[in-house]
Amino acid sequence: MNSGCTVWFTGLSGSGKSTLSKVLAQRLREAGARVEVLDGDVVRTRLCKDLGFTHGDREENIRRIGFVCELLSRNGVIAIVAAISPYRTSRDEVRSRIENFVEVYMRCPMEVLIQRDVKGLYKKALAGEIPLFTGISDVYEPPLKPEVTIDSSTDTPGEGLAKILDALELRGLLQRKAVPLADSATGLRTGEWVHGQSQLPPR
Amino acid sequence: MNSGCTVWFTGLSGSGKSTLSKVLAQRLREAGARVEVLDGDVVRTRLCKDLGFTHGDREENIRRIGFVCELLSRNGVIAIVAAISPYRTSRDEVRSRIENFVEVYMRCPMEVLIQRDVKGLYKKALAGEIPLFTGISDVYEPPLKPEVTIDSSTDTPGEGLAKILDALELRGLLQRKAVPLADSATGLRTGEWVHGQSQLPPR
Repeated sequence: MNSGCTVWFTGLSGSGKSTLSKVLAQRLREAGARVEVLDGDVVRTRLCKDLGFTHGDREENIRRIGFVCELLSRNGVIAIVAAISPYRTSRDEVRSRIENFVEVYMRCPMEVLIQRDVKGLYKKALAGEIPLFTGISDVYEPPLKPEVTIDSSTDTPGEGLAKILDALELRGLLQRKAVPLADSATGLRTGEWVHGQSQLPPR
Repeated sequence: MNSGCTVWFTGLSGSGKSTLSKVLAQRLREAGARVEVLDGDVVRTRLCKDLGFTHGDREENIRRIGFVCELLSRNGVIAIVAAISPYRTSRDEVRSRIENFVEVYMRCPMEVLIQRDVKGLYKKALAGEIPLFTGISDVYEPPLKPEVTIDSSTDTPGEGLAKILDALELRGLLQRKAVPLADSATGLRTGEWVHGQSQLPPR
């Protein structure tokens, strides 16, 4: 069985995609998985530097990232994408090409995003200084049936991570290690994970 | 040790890059390797459909393919590229980013290519019907120190394949299986290969 997959974060700017993708990547590497994070910024430098933010360019951006994910996933790698990826049809096109596709919708109310505004982008967008800003002056189409929905205004990063790990376990892409129950005296941890059947330790 | 690598074929149209890349891929899969062939045509559809054949576009084409190879290679996959990739600096830029990079120069005298002309492209190019045709109306810069040089006008595909397998073995990316010597009575074959240390059968 191929235990590669694509974990595709989608959501508005500031919804926590990058942060949680890094936490997830770290956790999956600890579980023995090969992991690549395709961050929006890196991709735009190495793969899509010709592309802007028009509808066509955003579609093409997703298509190229999707192609890379397809190659990685079918070779046993867990590809994690953290990109706004605003269009449902583009995401579904990628989904149709990838055997194990886990869409993670980072939901967050607009008022919370505007209040947080870590990068100061919403302020600029609301002032009309950024054209085609997703959620303000450009469309965002939330997924209809994502594998995981995380509300970053109420879920902690730990809760978000747990939801994703559960989704991967449900699909047989991750297994819980059989370890002794937690014991405060020995410090043993429960809930450790291993990636892929081939990664299981010998019995 | 990461046994992923990139095998990068470069050479003029009709020099045998695609053919040999397929033979190589098949052989490496038999050796237990995960293999992806990045063929020029597929790449131009999925990753580079915006690009033409100007100098800048050709550079960008190589850069994008190189990025994908980098991700695949560092995750244990053997990425095989069969693209003209005419510029030395572009190829060397990719080389500098990839730990295990094996450049295969498919050399072939122009008169042989024109005589073969399987796709009829040289005839058209010589008639001036194809602008920017590499080797006729556009530059090709052969590698100065390729890991492997194959002369497709004199080397058979089998000889070409053997040169590449030897180069991979030399770099520790492929091992010869310890099998009994050839015996026409039993039909055992010598010279079988296995990819990567982790693929070695248990002793």
